[in-house]
Amino acid sequence: MSRILYDLTGTEDRRFSPYCWRAKLAMALKDVAYETKAVRFTDIDALSDGPRLTLPTLDDGDKRITDSAAIAGYLEENYTSGQSLFPTGPEIAAFAQAWADTAVNPALIRVILLDVYNALDAENQAYFRESREKRFGTTLEAFAGDRAANLKAFRQTLQPLRGVVANQPFLSGAAPGYADFCPASALLWAAAIGVGGELLEDGDPVAAWLDRVVKLLDKSA
Amino acid sequence: MSRILYDLTGTEDRRFSPYCWRAKLAMALKDVAYETKAVRFTDIDALSDGPRLTLPTLDDGDKRITDSAAIAGYLEENYTSGQSLFPTGPEIAAFAQAWADTAVNPALIRVILLDVYNALDAENQAYFRESREKRFGTTLEAFAGDRAANLKAFRQTLQPLRGVVANQPFLSGAAPGYADFCPASALLWAAAIGVGGELLEDGDPVAAWLDRVVKLLDKSA
Repeated sequence: MSRILYDLTGTEDRRFSPYCWRAKLAMALKDVAYETKAVRFTDIDALSDGPRLTLPTLDDGDKRITDSAAIAGYLEENYTSGQSLFPTGPEIAAFAQAWADTAVNPALIRVILLDVYNALDAENQAYFRESREKRFGTTLEAFAGDRAANLKAFRQTLQPLRGVVANQPFLSGAAPGYADFCPASALLWAAAIGVGGELLEDGDPVAAWLDRVVKLLDKSA
Repeated sequence: MSRILYDLTGTEDRRFSPYCWRAKLAMALKDVAYETKAVRFTDIDALSDGPRLTLPTLDDGDKRITDSAAIAGYLEENYTSGQSLFPTGPEIAAFAQAWADTAVNPALIRVILLDVYNALDAENQAYFRESREKRFGTTLEAFAGDRAANLKAFRQTLQPLRGVVANQPFLSGAAPGYADFCPASALLWAAAIGVGGELLEDGDPVAAWLDRVVKLLDKSA
């Protein structure tokens, strides 16, 4: 059976999308093999005759599943391999996902917006600038604003995660789960475009937690 | 057996402390009867010969438990009455508590700081102003700043909760738990000093969720 994950890419094969990272971490935890198909923003229209696809999308044989949370639910329901994505139930995952979507990712985009832009080719830079400036109602540069202040705010935004993973291995408890993958994917998003260690201060428990999460990706390689 | 909960108060018996609310909601869910002893900031020193107590503190017979999370753990361990404070495990409670402590309460105090101050008598206003201005490094009025902007930021801070309770009854899942009581107590803190409905926009799913949570208090009355 062929499994293809459509995975957003920039120049130099930088796979940066935080939502695609959620799916890739979920595939790794479930120990489900797959190939990726690298897709640029401007390639997405050609992927489907119907409504425009959003990424990640997984083609598993003749089934197509779109959206990282839907992919996680599909994997949990259909594969008994690997470990559960919801080792202590779905509640912590629902809250962590909502938190990552509405607090972590919005705080991080203020830090890395121009780094994302710089990781795209000219055609995709034009797409990104036009779509994002429309969404933000201002220029990329104005939205990015004061990087040092935004970095400080981003670190503050991680406080709830920091408080938990200083005391237990994962948000999900003793074992990692989809709850962890949502905020971890934000940091992988930044790392993929070269904004890595500087996001966290030395000794931040979030860095040790991220190391524990990304080990899953080594195992599946 | 006598159970006394030391409960922070302002003028007109306004019991505002969010951390005391966490304990009162926990007692209600566990269906454990108790009396409160109203304590002003300036009464706290006289409560103990040893280190200064923090509120809430529960005296249960000859046992003294301090700190809202410790009280919740104590109730869960020692009482089989009522419902579990952790109906879907401790993970969601740990994260929700960390989130309420580091995101919700700090965002809300920027909105209601002067309302808290105005709910105190002159002696406690002096204590509050001195201790908080030292903590914040500025005057109460400067820290409070632009109330409309702070209210907007507070509503934004609630997004992760909003996203979850639009789709399921409680953060804890189908039944309420300590995870819910941590952010709910922030809103009860504001309500106790007269800053109620204006905190949430009409139709906010958070308001309907809060109604579901506070029903527990009616049941125990």
